[in-house]
Amino acid sequence: MSASVKHKQDNAALLFLAALSLALLTVLTVWKLKQFKYRLINETGAAMFYGMLLGLTARWLWFEAHAENVESVCTCHGLNSTPRVLTVNTTTHEHCYRRVGKISQRCSLISAPHAETFDPEVLFNLFLPPIIFHGAYTLNQRRFIENLGSVLTYAFLGTIISCMCIGACMYGFTRLMVLLGQAADGEFFLTDCLLFGAIMSATDPVSVLGLLSDLRVDLDLHTLLFGESVLNDAVAIVLTHAITTYDQTGAVFDPAAFLRSAGLFLGVLVGSILIGFIFTVITALLTKFTRLHENPLLETSVFFLLSWSSFLSAQAGGLSGIVAVLFCGLSQARYTVLNLSSEGRTRTKQLFEVFNFLGEIFIFGYMGYVLLTFPHHVFKAVFISGAFLSIFISRACNIYPLSFLLNLGRTNKIPCAFQHFMTLAGLRGAVAFSVAFSLAARDDSTEARRAILTTTLLLVAFTIWVLGSASDPVLRRLDIRVGVDADENPQDLSLEVATGRPDTTRGLWHRLDYKYLKPLLTHCGPPLTDSLPPCCGVVARLFSSPHVQEEQLFETEPEECTFDLEKTENQFKSAGGDCGSENQEDLVEGDLVEGDLGLGTVPAHIREA
Amino acid sequence: MSASVKHKQDNAALLFLAALSLALLTVLTVWKLKQFKYRLINETGAAMFYGMLLGLTARWLWFEAHAENVESVCTCHGLNSTPRVLTVNTTTHEHCYRRVGKISQRCSLISAPHAETFDPEVLFNLFLPPIIFHGAYTLNQRRFIENLGSVLTYAFLGTIISCMCIGACMYGFTRLMVLLGQAADGEFFLTDCLLFGAIMSATDPVSVLGLLSDLRVDLDLHTLLFGESVLNDAVAIVLTHAITTYDQTGAVFDPAAFLRSAGLFLGVLVGSILIGFIFTVITALLTKFTRLHENPLLETSVFFLLSWSSFLSAQAGGLSGIVAVLFCGLSQARYTVLNLSSEGRTRTKQLFEVFNFLGEIFIFGYMGYVLLTFPHHVFKAVFISGAFLSIFISRACNIYPLSFLLNLGRTNKIPCAFQHFMTLAGLRGAVAFSVAFSLAARDDSTEARRAILTTTLLLVAFTIWVLGSASDPVLRRLDIRVGVDADENPQDLSLEVATGRPDTTRGLWHRLDYKYLKPLLTHCGPPLTDSLPPCCGVVARLFSSPHVQEEQLFETEPEECTFDLEKTENQFKSAGGDCGSENQEDLVEGDLVEGDLGLGTVPAHIREA
Repeated sequence: MSASVKHKQDNAALLFLAALSLALLTVLTVWKLKQFKYRLINETGAAMFYGMLLGLTARWLWFEAHAENVESVCTCHGLNSTPRVLTVNTTTHEHCYRRVGKISQRCSLISAPHAETFDPEVLFNLFLPPIIFHGAYTLNQRRFIENLGSVLTYAFLGTIISCMCIGACMYGFTRLMVLLGQAADGEFFLTDCLLFGAIMSATDPVSVLGLLSDLRVDLDLHTLLFGESVLNDAVAIVLTHAITTYDQTGAVFDPAAFLRSAGLFLGVLVGSILIGFIFTVITALLTKFTRLHENPLLETSVFFLLSWSSFLSAQAGGLSGIVAVLFCGLSQARYTVLNLSSEGRTRTKQLFEVFNFLGEIFIFGYMGYVLLTFPHHVFKAVFISGAFLSIFISRACNIYPLSFLLNLGRTNKIPCAFQHFMTLAGLRGAVAFSVAFSLAARDDSTEARRAILTTTLLLVAFTIWVLGSASDPVLRRLDIRVGVDADENPQDLSLEVATGRPDTTRGLWHRLDYKYLKPLLTHCGPPLTDSLPPCCGVVARLFSSPHVQEEQLFETEPEECTFDLEKTENQFKSAGGDCGSENQEDLVEGDLVEGDLGLGTVPAHIREA
Repeated sequence: MSASVKHKQDNAALLFLAALSLALLTVLTVWKLKQFKYRLINETGAAMFYGMLLGLTARWLWFEAHAENVESVCTCHGLNSTPRVLTVNTTTHEHCYRRVGKISQRCSLISAPHAETFDPEVLFNLFLPPIIFHGAYTLNQRRFIENLGSVLTYAFLGTIISCMCIGACMYGFTRLMVLLGQAADGEFFLTDCLLFGAIMSATDPVSVLGLLSDLRVDLDLHTLLFGESVLNDAVAIVLTHAITTYDQTGAVFDPAAFLRSAGLFLGVLVGSILIGFIFTVITALLTKFTRLHENPLLETSVFFLLSWSSFLSAQAGGLSGIVAVLFCGLSQARYTVLNLSSEGRTRTKQLFEVFNFLGEIFIFGYMGYVLLTFPHHVFKAVFISGAFLSIFISRACNIYPLSFLLNLGRTNKIPCAFQHFMTLAGLRGAVAFSVAFSLAARDDSTEARRAILTTTLLLVAFTIWVLGSASDPVLRRLDIRVGVDADENPQDLSLEVATGRPDTTRGLWHRLDYKYLKPLLTHCGPPLTDSLPPCCGVVARLFSSPHVQEEQLFETEPEECTFDLEKTENQFKSAGGDCGSENQEDLVEGDLVEGDLGLGTVPAHIREA
């Protein structure tokens, strides 16, 4: 093996090693902090901090190695234009060096971090799906369905309000910059401001989940915040797409384009949900009709690969992978889990847990790293301070009016304390960074887009460190329950009480879920031959479980049954299946472990506010 | 988000999706085949097959899209010279396209597989360490120590013999090619032939493990084959390095350079082992003296990250990552495992199991993919047939004479049947491919090196499909035990009987292991204050376990105790630790599950030959 090949291998190894050290340091730091009951910083904040340290080191070494070489590089391949992907540069540099006969071992070693491996696409495709999936898989489904209306309102209407608000504020600030002489007149367009609004309007599921699982807040609040943060991704993606399209056409307001955007938005949403659900159906049927459960390793692999594929299929099809994997996680937890062997259940949960934990660390570490190593940062003081102000204003304009409207219809009102906390807890993170980075790292990116990336990174760091740290004291101050476990009282969970919706909706959902989906996808529920009309007899027999159970328990109160752990378990064990019970047990356990994920070692009753 | 950014993201997602589908198909195929008791193809073979299908599809789409564009690309950035890394091309192509105004969506979508994500370095750094670690972690340590001498002989002496043999044979064949007019006189040098010998001399741990765990052969045979395949990597790497260095200097035979190579070899070996062991010491001390075991997730993460780091540190330092992670795995299984919580043990084992399984699939799938998509294959019929012949000759020249010599010293002889099977089971795979690919994909690679890559890929495919499939019938024919579980009879395991070595060696190893390492790294064994001389009192107290146990059981027969599962477990549970017992249980269970890994669903007693 020649020295240069060996050297390239060493570089790749060095990169991975740096990432692993970062993860290791984060794990140990956070664990140590938690041991001393210091609960203000969670793993995302710590990972970002270590990422910055790593970036600082790389920068220092890079500058030292390149102090005199940098000129020749620039003239060689035109470094002045921002490369679309950082991947390009190093390799061309190496060519470059080889041609001018200046191969510096040190150089290529240090230039590597900018290039080959740390591609954000790879990072996001690798780590985002397990994070979102794990969040959905361990989410309290009951609460989610109860709060679905409110979640959708915040996610869709709220995000659009936020985007407009931030866009308007930022446009004001860019005008101010022009007045102060800090920017040229044509540097920031209204579309740039709206683009920034679209990027910053969506709260980040990864950081919000990190915060919530750490604090174990009230379950309704958890559901509202997490649900919003996951679903507004779709809105933000469509808004960004619509704005960049406007930008290219140059039109001011075009009703047809607006309608197209609205249609596109609906298409993205429905398409993503469908893809997520299709993958659940595949997994469920595969685990129902094959004997995969005899081999937990294969079962876990299939479950894992198919769940991941839902994200990737949606992304590849131009839809929202995050929404797809969210619905995949929700439906896998409702149906497929019932077909898995008990070892398979534990394995899938633990596997996603580890991926989720390490993924969070890698993604936030990478953001910290980019903050200090991206070569084309544009710091605009007025723009940045305007952005800080506008995210608070936009968040307030989103939460308070919508909560007021929602409370008109809700029996179980959203208290003021929740509203204050939701305003505060609008953390930004990986998704915003990913979009801003894609726009800023392109060849034809403008000064404005690079300023947007810089500001986005600073805002992410600020919301995670400052707002994240402030959450715990604020929660105490607002008298919101923390340290909540999922073993809540089933009595206060009646759907009608919580949402004020009449029983018909429930009946519809119940019929679909209990009469058709459960028998189709699992071994539970009434036989399909009973539910389906006689004309569908062949289909019904084809998809009927070989050992379907018709239990009185499920007939009367399908949602309640899941709490009667021992009773149902004993009943079904004898019949060859253990439906429902283990599922909920899994979810409950999942919530608990998710709490532990945040490294909280304090027992729940001590932390009760 | 602009269309091009969105598009790039879609590509990355598409790539991942293709990889996941490949994995999924492999899992399902192999599982189905196993169900029908068709045991000739294991996951590596199936993965390679699907990889080739994927490559074929990509190639077809690529050709279709590029049929008329390919000329302009070539002239644009000089595609005729082999790029060192495939990463370079696409992005420059995109530049290229943009400049000539021919951005073809289809094109850039299809060109992606060649580029951005599928970097073999990343693949190997990601998946090789868990595979080797899992192999070592679940290896029967007793057998390994018993057979260490033989393993080392095969790995070191055997690999050198193989390399020389293949080199000599291939030199003959290249001469024949010149005579037949199939190659120019200066096309293949002796060093090229020796380089090919070095690449092909090392058997591949991944494919060998896949085969062995599938068949569950006799444990001695398993240890000999797996031990050899892991350790000869270091020899192959040093040989390759030495030969490419010779190649550059042009010397025929230089005794000084030879000595340097020998020194380098020893340095690489000792350095790698040390690195592996250092990471075990760090992990063991961390898990011994902190209360990480209260949080199994953190415990698993730390264990996982540190074990992985051993591979990467060795690679980054220019040593053999495979040897490092092998020794890390062996020592982690001996010491650190004793400090883990029981949930932590299960989790680490299952995590590595999943990584091992998926890693195998991805690596072999990738090889199949490259076989059909590498743009500069050089097929030389004589060279290829010569290579097929020479790997058999070299393997026979390695195994039979060395086994004869070893049998002179062994009480427990290596039977002829084992020797025949070892000759057959010299599968080549990921490591050979990785080295050959690095050499062939460089800018300055020669025709000879590209022919080496092509031949290597064909040989890998041949050994995996043909030799791998032949293994099962051959084993039956040779009357070798298959379907062996690890719960063997402890009586026949006496070290003296097996190796014929006197008790003194055992005494030395026992003293070091039992008196110093165990008490230092775990909570087991006699207190360090007793083992160490009085002058080391401070050190002894510092590293002494807070709750060390001095058990009669360990005193008398430390190696035997591990089999008295329930007895020791009950004794230690009360004292706060459960040393030794769970470890062996873990190993036994590990072996069993590893057997399942190969998807064998046939009970052991049925398959007994």
